[in-house]
Amino acid sequence: MNQSYNSSLLDGAVAELSKLPGIGSKTALRLALHLLRQEKGVALALGNAIIKMREEVAYCSRCHSISEQELCPICSDSRRDQAVVCVVENIKDVLTIEATREHRGVYHVLGGLISPLDGIGPGDIEIDSLIERVTTEDVREVILALSPTMEGDTTNFYIFRRLADLPVKVTMLARGLSIGNDLEFTDELTLGRSIQNRILFSDTISR
Amino acid sequence: MNQSYNSSLLDGAVAELSKLPGIGSKTALRLALHLLRQEKGVALALGNAIIKMREEVAYCSRCHSISEQELCPICSDSRRDQAVVCVVENIKDVLTIEATREHRGVYHVLGGLISPLDGIGPGDIEIDSLIERVTTEDVREVILALSPTMEGDTTNFYIFRRLADLPVKVTMLARGLSIGNDLEFTDELTLGRSIQNRILFSDTISR
Repeated sequence: MNQSYNSSLLDGAVAELSKLPGIGSKTALRLALHLLRQEKGVALALGNAIIKMREEVAYCSRCHSISEQELCPICSDSRRDQAVVCVVENIKDVLTIEATREHRGVYHVLGGLISPLDGIGPGDIEIDSLIERVTTEDVREVILALSPTMEGDTTNFYIFRRLADLPVKVTMLARGLSIGNDLEFTDELTLGRSIQNRILFSDTISR
Repeated sequence: MNQSYNSSLLDGAVAELSKLPGIGSKTALRLALHLLRQEKGVALALGNAIIKMREEVAYCSRCHSISEQELCPICSDSRRDQAVVCVVENIKDVLTIEATREHRGVYHVLGGLISPLDGIGPGDIEIDSLIERVTTEDVREVILALSPTMEGDTTNFYIFRRLADLPVKVTMLARGLSIGNDLEFTDELTLGRSIQNRILFSDTISR
Protein backbone atom coordinates (compact mmCIF):
# COMPACT_ATOMS: atom_id res chain seq x y z
CA MET A 1 0.00 0.00 0.00
CA ASN A 2 2.00 2.92 -1.25
CA GLN A 3 -0.82 5.40 -1.37
CA SER A 4 -0.28 8.95 -0.30
CA TYR A 5 -2.57 10.43 2.31
CA ASN A 6 -2.53 13.97 0.89
CA SER A 7 -0.18 14.84 3.70
CA SER A 8 3.56 14.37 3.89
CA LEU A 9 3.20 14.63 7.68
CA LEU A 10 0.91 11.62 7.87
CA ASP A 11 2.98 9.81 5.25
CA GLY A 12 6.10 10.46 7.32
CA ALA A 13 4.63 9.16 10.56
CA VAL A 14 3.20 6.07 8.83
CA ALA A 15 6.59 5.36 7.22
CA GLU A 16 8.42 5.57 10.55
CA LEU A 17 5.80 3.54 12.45
CA SER A 18 5.90 0.77 9.86
CA LYS A 19 9.65 0.33 10.44
CA LEU A 20 8.80 -1.13 13.86
CA PRO A 21 8.92 -4.94 14.03
CA GLY A 22 5.50 -6.51 13.50
CA ILE A 23 3.89 -3.24 12.40
CA GLY A 24 2.81 -3.26 8.75
CA SER A 25 1.70 -0.23 6.76
CA LYS A 26 -1.98 -0.85 7.53
CA THR A 27 -1.40 -1.03 11.27
CA ALA A 28 0.90 2.00 11.05
CA LEU A 29 -1.89 4.00 9.38
CA ARG A 30 -4.36 2.87 12.05
CA LEU A 31 -1.95 3.99 14.79
CA ALA A 32 -1.27 7.33 13.11
CA LEU A 33 -4.98 8.08 12.65
CA HIS A 34 -5.52 7.11 16.28
CA LEU A 35 -2.87 9.61 17.37
CA LEU A 36 -4.53 12.29 15.24
CA ARG A 37 -7.90 11.66 16.88
CA GLN A 38 -6.54 11.82 20.44
CA GLU A 39 -5.75 14.97 22.40
CA LYS A 40 -2.51 16.50 21.17
CA GLY A 41 -0.78 15.63 24.46
CA VAL A 42 -1.00 11.88 23.77
CA ALA A 43 1.07 12.03 20.59
CA LEU A 44 3.56 14.50 22.05
CA ALA A 45 4.07 12.34 25.17
CA LEU A 46 4.69 9.26 23.01
CA GLY A 47 7.12 11.03 20.68
CA ASN A 48 9.02 12.63 23.52
CA ALA A 49 9.20 9.43 25.57
CA ILE A 50 10.76 7.59 22.61
CA ILE A 51 13.29 10.36 21.93
CA LYS A 52 14.17 10.81 25.60
CA MET A 53 14.61 7.08 26.16
CA ARG A 54 16.91 6.70 23.16
CA GLU A 55 18.96 9.80 23.91
CA GLU A 56 19.40 9.41 27.64
CA VAL A 57 19.34 5.69 28.32
CA ALA A 58 22.40 4.35 30.12
CA TYR A 59 23.70 0.90 30.95
CA CYS A 60 25.22 -0.67 34.06
CA SER A 61 29.00 -0.59 33.60
CA ARG A 62 29.29 -4.07 35.10
CA CYS A 63 26.39 -6.23 33.85
CA HIS A 64 25.30 -4.07 30.85
CA SER A 65 21.66 -4.12 31.91
CA ILE A 66 19.74 -0.85 31.61
CA SER A 67 20.47 1.42 34.55
CA GLU A 68 20.27 5.06 35.51
CA GLN A 69 23.24 4.77 37.85
CA GLU A 70 26.78 3.63 37.11
CA LEU A 71 25.85 0.30 38.73
CA CYS A 72 22.35 -1.16 38.36
CA PRO A 73 20.24 -1.90 41.48
CA ILE A 74 21.01 -5.62 41.23
CA CYS A 75 24.79 -5.14 40.93
CA SER A 76 24.80 -2.75 43.88
CA ASP A 77 22.57 -4.94 46.10
CA SER A 78 24.73 -6.47 48.81
CA ARG A 79 22.03 -9.05 49.63
CA ARG A 80 22.53 -10.64 46.20
CA ASP A 81 25.30 -13.17 45.70
CA GLN A 82 27.77 -11.22 43.58
CA ALA A 83 29.80 -14.38 42.95
CA VAL A 84 27.07 -16.12 40.92
CA VAL A 85 26.68 -14.56 37.47
CA CYS A 86 23.73 -15.47 35.25
CA VAL A 87 24.53 -14.84 31.56
CA VAL A 88 21.50 -13.74 29.50
CA GLU A 89 20.92 -12.54 25.97
CA ASN A 90 19.09 -9.29 26.70
CA ILE A 91 17.47 -7.04 29.26
CA LYS A 92 14.10 -8.71 28.87
CA ASP A 93 15.58 -12.04 29.97
CA VAL A 94 16.76 -10.39 33.20
CA LEU A 95 13.13 -9.56 33.95
CA THR A 96 11.94 -13.03 32.98
CA ILE A 97 14.43 -14.68 35.33
CA GLU A 98 13.82 -12.16 38.12
CA ALA A 99 10.12 -13.06 37.93
CA THR A 100 10.93 -16.69 38.88
CA ARG A 101 12.61 -15.47 42.12
CA GLU A 102 14.96 -18.48 41.82
CA HIS A 103 18.18 -16.58 41.07
CA ARG A 104 19.75 -14.71 43.97
CA GLY A 105 22.96 -13.83 42.15
CA VAL A 106 23.69 -11.16 39.56
CA TYR A 107 23.57 -10.93 35.76
CA HIS A 108 25.67 -10.36 32.68
CA VAL A 109 23.73 -9.13 29.64
CA LEU A 110 25.40 -10.14 26.36
CA GLY A 111 23.25 -7.91 24.16
CA GLY A 112 22.79 -10.65 21.56
CA LEU A 113 23.90 -14.17 20.60
CA ILE A 114 26.65 -15.37 18.29
CA SER A 115 25.00 -15.78 14.90
CA PRO A 116 27.35 -16.13 11.91
CA LEU A 117 24.39 -16.00 9.50
CA ASP A 118 23.49 -12.54 10.81
CA GLY A 119 27.13 -11.49 10.89
CA ILE A 120 27.25 -11.39 14.70
CA GLY A 121 30.53 -12.72 16.04
CA PRO A 122 31.85 -13.07 19.61
CA GLY A 123 33.39 -9.58 19.39
CA ASP A 124 30.00 -7.98 18.75
CA ILE A 125 28.51 -9.01 22.09
CA GLU A 126 29.66 -8.59 25.70
CA ILE A 127 31.74 -11.77 25.95
CA ASP A 128 35.17 -10.19 26.51
CA SER A 129 33.75 -8.16 29.40
CA LEU A 130 32.33 -11.38 30.89
CA ILE A 131 35.70 -13.12 30.72
CA GLU A 132 37.37 -10.10 32.28
CA ARG A 133 34.73 -10.03 35.00
CA VAL A 134 35.37 -13.69 35.83
CA THR A 135 39.13 -13.10 35.76
CA THR A 136 39.24 -10.01 37.96
CA GLU A 137 36.23 -10.47 40.25
CA ASP A 138 35.59 -13.26 42.67
CA VAL A 139 33.13 -15.27 40.53
CA ARG A 140 32.25 -18.75 41.80
CA GLU A 141 29.67 -19.81 39.21
CA VAL A 142 28.59 -18.72 35.73
CA ILE A 143 25.05 -19.83 34.85
CA LEU A 144 24.47 -19.87 31.08
CA ALA A 145 20.80 -18.92 30.66
CA LEU A 146 20.54 -18.55 26.89
CA SER A 147 17.72 -19.81 24.68
CA PRO A 148 17.89 -23.48 23.65
CA THR A 149 18.43 -22.55 19.99
CA MET A 150 21.28 -22.95 17.52
CA GLU A 151 22.55 -19.45 18.34
CA GLY A 152 22.13 -19.98 22.07
CA ASP A 153 23.98 -23.31 21.98
CA THR A 154 26.80 -21.83 19.87
CA THR A 155 27.20 -18.95 22.32
CA ASN A 156 27.04 -21.32 25.31
CA PHE A 157 29.79 -23.46 23.81
CA TYR A 158 32.00 -20.48 22.93
CA ILE A 159 31.73 -19.01 26.44
CA PHE A 160 32.34 -22.45 27.99
CA ARG A 161 35.57 -22.79 26.01
CA ARG A 162 36.76 -19.28 26.90
CA LEU A 163 36.15 -20.02 30.59
CA ALA A 164 37.66 -23.52 30.53
CA ASP A 165 41.00 -22.55 32.11
CA LEU A 166 39.53 -20.31 34.78
CA PRO A 167 38.64 -21.59 38.27
CA VAL A 168 34.89 -21.11 37.87
CA LYS A 169 31.97 -23.54 37.77
CA VAL A 170 30.02 -23.20 34.51
CA THR A 171 26.40 -24.41 34.59
CA MET A 172 23.50 -24.05 32.20
CA LEU A 173 19.70 -24.16 32.48
CA ALA A 174 18.21 -27.68 32.53
CA ARG A 175 16.42 -28.85 29.42
CA GLY A 176 13.41 -31.04 29.99
CA LEU A 177 9.64 -31.26 30.00
CA SER A 178 7.69 -28.03 30.25
CA ILE A 179 5.60 -28.07 33.39
CA GLY A 180 1.91 -28.46 32.53
CA ASN A 181 2.59 -29.68 28.98
CA ASP A 182 1.39 -33.09 27.88
CA LEU A 183 4.15 -35.66 27.36
CA GLU A 184 2.86 -36.46 23.87
CA PHE A 185 3.31 -32.84 22.76
CA THR A 186 6.94 -32.67 23.88
CA ASP A 187 9.38 -32.81 20.97
CA GLU A 188 11.68 -35.86 20.74
CA LEU A 189 14.87 -33.90 21.31
CA THR A 190 13.61 -32.39 24.54
CA LEU A 191 12.16 -35.70 25.69
CA GLY A 192 15.46 -37.43 24.91
CA ARG A 193 17.38 -34.83 26.91
CA SER A 194 14.96 -35.14 29.81
CA ILE A 195 15.67 -38.89 29.94
CA GLN A 196 19.44 -38.37 29.83
CA ASN A 197 19.20 -35.71 32.55
CA ARG A 198 16.63 -37.52 34.68
CA ILE A 199 16.61 -36.50 38.32
CA LEU A 200 16.16 -38.37 41.58
CA PHE A 201 12.49 -38.26 42.51
CA SER A 202 13.42 -37.82 46.18
CA ASP A 203 15.17 -34.54 45.23
CA THR A 204 11.91 -33.08 43.94
CA ILE A 205 10.07 -33.83 47.16
CA SER A 206 12.57 -32.25 49.52
CA ARG A 207 12.29 -28.91 47.71
CA MET B 1 3.11 -6.93 33.87
CA ASN B 2 3.89 -3.96 36.05
CA GLN B 3 7.56 -4.67 36.46
CA SER B 4 10.05 -1.89 36.44
CA TYR B 5 12.95 -2.07 34.02
CA ASN B 6 15.45 -0.31 36.31
CA SER B 7 14.99 2.72 34.11
CA SER B 8 12.30 5.35 34.27
CA LEU B 9 13.20 6.19 30.65
CA LEU B 10 12.38 2.70 29.42
CA ASP B 11 9.34 2.54 31.73
CA GLY B 12 8.13 5.83 30.28
CA ALA B 13 8.46 4.76 26.67
CA VAL B 14 6.78 1.40 27.38
CA ALA B 15 3.91 3.16 29.16
CA GLU B 16 3.31 5.52 26.24
CA LEU B 17 3.65 2.82 23.58
CA SER B 18 1.16 0.58 25.37
CA LYS B 19 -1.47 3.32 25.15
CA LEU B 20 -1.64 2.67 21.40
CA PRO B 21 -4.59 0.54 20.29
CA GLY B 22 -3.70 -3.14 19.96
CA ILE B 23 -0.31 -2.69 21.67
CA GLY B 24 -0.10 -4.44 25.02
CA SER B 25 2.66 -3.98 27.57
CA LYS B 26 4.62 -6.98 26.23
CA THR B 27 4.58 -5.69 22.66
CA ALA B 28 5.42 -2.19 23.93
CA LEU B 29 8.48 -3.57 25.70
CA ARG B 30 9.53 -5.43 22.56
CA LEU B 31 9.19 -2.24 20.49
CA ALA B 32 11.11 -0.17 23.05
CA LEU B 33 13.97 -2.69 23.23
CA HIS B 34 14.02 -2.76 19.42
CA LEU B 35 14.38 1.03 19.35
CA LEU B 36 17.22 0.81 21.89
CA ARG B 37 19.08 -1.72 19.74
CA GLN B 38 18.79 0.30 16.52
CA GLU B 39 20.94 3.27 15.54
CA LYS B 40 19.90 6.35 17.49
CA GLY B 41 18.53 7.98 14.33
CA VAL B 42 15.73 5.42 14.01
CA ALA B 43 14.13 6.27 17.35
CA LEU B 44 14.62 10.02 16.87
CA ALA B 45 13.03 9.91 13.41
CA LEU B 46 10.03 8.02 14.76
CA GLY B 47 9.55 10.32 17.74
CA ASN B 48 9.92 13.45 15.66
CA ALA B 49 7.59 12.22 12.89
CA ILE B 50 4.85 11.56 15.46
CA ILE B 51 5.29 14.96 17.12
CA LYS B 52 5.53 16.84 13.81
CA MET B 53 2.45 15.10 12.40
CA ARG B 54 0.34 15.87 15.45
CA GLU B 55 1.52 19.45 15.78
CA GLU B 56 1.40 20.52 12.16
CA VAL B 57 -1.34 18.42 10.57
CA ALA B 58 -4.10 20.43 8.92
CA TYR B 59 -7.45 19.60 7.42
CA CYS B 60 -9.25 20.65 4.26
CA SER B 61 -11.64 23.45 5.21
CA ARG B 62 -14.31 22.02 2.93
CA CYS B 63 -14.28 18.20 3.20
CA HIS B 64 -12.26 17.84 6.48
CA SER B 65 -9.89 15.33 4.96
CA ILE B 66 -6.21 15.71 5.81
CA SER B 67 -4.58 18.38 3.67
CA GLU B 68 -1.56 20.61 3.67
CA GLN B 69 -3.36 23.34 1.75
CA GLU B 70 -6.57 25.18 2.64
CA LEU B 71 -8.34 22.92 0.12
CA CYS B 72 -7.30 19.28 -0.36
CA PRO B 73 -6.17 18.06 -3.80
CA ILE B 74 -9.56 16.39 -4.43
CA CYS B 75 -11.62 19.48 -3.52
CA SER B 76 -9.43 21.66 -5.73
CA ASP B 77 -9.43 19.26 -8.70
CA SER B 78 -11.65 20.74 -11.43
CA ARG B 79 -11.84 17.37 -13.23
CA ARG B 80 -13.77 15.91 -10.27
CA ASP B 81 -17.51 16.39 -10.07
CA GLN B 82 -17.83 18.88 -7.21
CA ALA B 83 -21.61 18.39 -7.14
CA VAL B 84 -21.45 14.75 -6.01
CA VAL B 85 -20.42 14.45 -2.35
CA CYS B 86 -19.51 11.10 -0.86
CA VAL B 87 -19.95 11.10 2.94
CA VAL B 88 -17.44 8.88 4.79
CA GLU B 89 -16.57 8.20 8.40
CA ASN B 90 -12.84 8.93 8.30
CA ILE B 91 -9.78 9.71 6.20
CA LYS B 92 -8.98 6.04 5.72
CA ASP B 93 -12.34 5.51 4.01
CA VAL B 94 -11.45 8.24 1.48
CA LEU B 95 -8.43 6.15 0.49
CA THR B 96 -10.45 2.94 0.38
CA ILE B 97 -13.02 4.48 -1.96
CA GLU B 98 -10.37 6.23 -4.08
CA ALA B 99 -8.76 2.81 -4.60
CA THR B 100 -11.94 1.56 -6.35
CA ARG B 101 -11.68 4.41 -8.92
CA GLU B 102 -15.50 4.36 -9.09
CA HIS B 103 -16.16 7.72 -7.44
CA ARG B 104 -15.39 10.79 -9.53
CA GLY B 105 -16.96 13.30 -7.15
CA VAL B 106 -15.68 14.74 -3.88
CA TYR B 107 -15.86 13.77 -0.19
CA HIS B 108 -17.11 14.89 3.19
CA VAL B 109 -15.30 13.34 6.15
CA LEU B 110 -17.52 13.14 9.26
CA GLY B 111 -14.71 12.25 11.63
CA GLY B 112 -16.82 9.58 13.34
CA LEU B 113 -20.31 8.11 13.53
CA ILE B 114 -23.24 8.89 15.81
CA SER B 115 -22.91 6.49 18.72
CA PRO B 116 -25.02 7.28 21.80
CA LEU B 117 -23.34 4.47 23.74
CA ASP B 118 -19.95 6.15 23.25
CA GLY B 119 -21.44 9.59 23.93
CA ILE B 120 -20.98 10.74 20.33
CA GLY B 121 -23.93 12.83 19.16
CA PRO B 122 -24.62 14.56 15.83
CA GLY B 123 -22.94 17.73 17.14
CA ASP B 124 -19.64 15.92 17.70
CA ILE B 125 -19.10 15.06 14.05
CA GLU B 126 -19.10 17.14 10.84
CA ILE B 127 -22.82 16.93 10.07
CA ASP B 128 -23.71 20.63 10.40
CA SER B 129 -20.92 21.49 7.96
CA LEU B 130 -22.32 18.91 5.53
CA ILE B 131 -25.81 20.42 5.71
CA GLU B 132 -24.34 23.88 5.20
CA ARG B 133 -22.31 22.64 2.25
CA VAL B 134 -25.43 21.18 0.62
CA THR B 135 -27.35 24.38 1.35
CA THR B 136 -24.79 26.84 0.03
CA GLU B 137 -22.98 24.89 -2.68
CA ASP B 138 -24.43 23.39 -5.82
CA VAL B 139 -24.66 19.77 -4.60
CA ARG B 140 -26.63 17.39 -6.81
CA GLU B 141 -26.12 14.11 -4.95
CA VAL B 142 -25.02 13.01 -1.49
CA ILE B 143 -23.72 9.42 -1.39
CA LEU B 144 -23.85 7.96 2.12
CA ALA B 145 -20.84 5.60 2.28
CA LEU B 146 -20.84 4.63 5.94
CA SER B 147 -20.26 1.15 7.35
CA PRO B 148 -23.31 -1.16 7.44
CA THR B 149 -23.34 -1.19 11.24
CA MET B 150 -25.74 0.09 13.88
CA GLU B 151 -23.78 3.36 14.16
CA GLY B 152 -23.51 3.73 10.39
CA ASP B 153 -27.23 3.16 9.88
CA THR B 154 -28.11 5.61 12.67
CA THR B 155 -25.89 8.27 11.12
CA ASN B 156 -27.25 7.55 7.63
CA PHE B 157 -30.80 8.00 8.87
CA TYR B 158 -30.01 11.18 10.79
CA ILE B 159 -28.32 12.78 7.76
CA PHE B 160 -31.13 11.63 5.49
CA ARG B 161 -33.67 13.37 7.73
CA ARG B 162 -31.63 16.58 7.93
CA LEU B 163 -31.37 16.66 4.12
CA ALA B 164 -35.04 15.74 3.50
CA ASP B 165 -36.20 19.28 2.68
CA LEU B 166 -33.25 20.18 0.49
CA PRO B 167 -33.25 19.66 -3.29
CA VAL B 168 -30.58 16.99 -3.30
CA LYS B 169 -30.60 13.31 -4.20
CA VAL B 170 -29.50 11.13 -1.28
CA THR B 171 -28.13 7.69 -2.14
CA MET B 172 -26.31 5.03 -0.16
CA LEU B 173 -23.97 2.16 -0.96
CA ALA B 174 -25.70 -1.03 -2.10
CA ARG B 175 -25.84 -3.92 0.32
CA GLY B 176 -25.57 -7.34 -1.24
CA LEU B 177 -23.38 -10.36 -1.81
CA SER B 178 -19.64 -9.91 -1.49
CA ILE B 179 -17.99 -10.66 -4.81
CA GLY B 180 -16.07 -13.94 -4.61
CA ASN B 181 -17.86 -15.11 -1.46
CA ASP B 182 -19.87 -18.32 -1.47
CA LEU B 183 -23.63 -17.84 -1.21
CA GLU B 184 -23.85 -20.24 1.72
CA PHE B 185 -21.46 -18.10 3.78
CA THR B 186 -23.47 -14.91 3.29
CA ASP B 187 -25.47 -13.92 6.36
CA GLU B 188 -29.26 -14.01 6.13
CA LEU B 189 -29.71 -10.26 6.55
CA THR B 190 -27.39 -9.45 3.66
CA LEU B 191 -28.88 -12.20 1.51
CA GLY B 192 -32.37 -10.90 2.26
CA ARG B 193 -31.33 -7.36 1.31
CA SER B 194 -29.73 -8.62 -1.90
CA ILE B 195 -33.04 -10.22 -2.89
CA GLN B 196 -35.02 -7.05 -2.10
CA ASN B 197 -32.53 -4.96 -4.05
CA ARG B 198 -32.06 -7.40 -6.92
CA ILE B 199 -30.83 -5.83 -10.14
CA LEU B 200 -31.62 -6.36 -13.82
CA PHE B 201 -29.14 -8.86 -15.20
CA SER B 202 -28.96 -6.92 -18.45
CA ASP B 203 -27.63 -3.92 -16.48
CA THR B 204 -24.62 -5.90 -15.33
CA ILE B 205 -23.68 -6.90 -18.88
CA SER B 206 -23.72 -3.42 -20.36
CA ARG B 207 -21.14 -2.18 -17.84
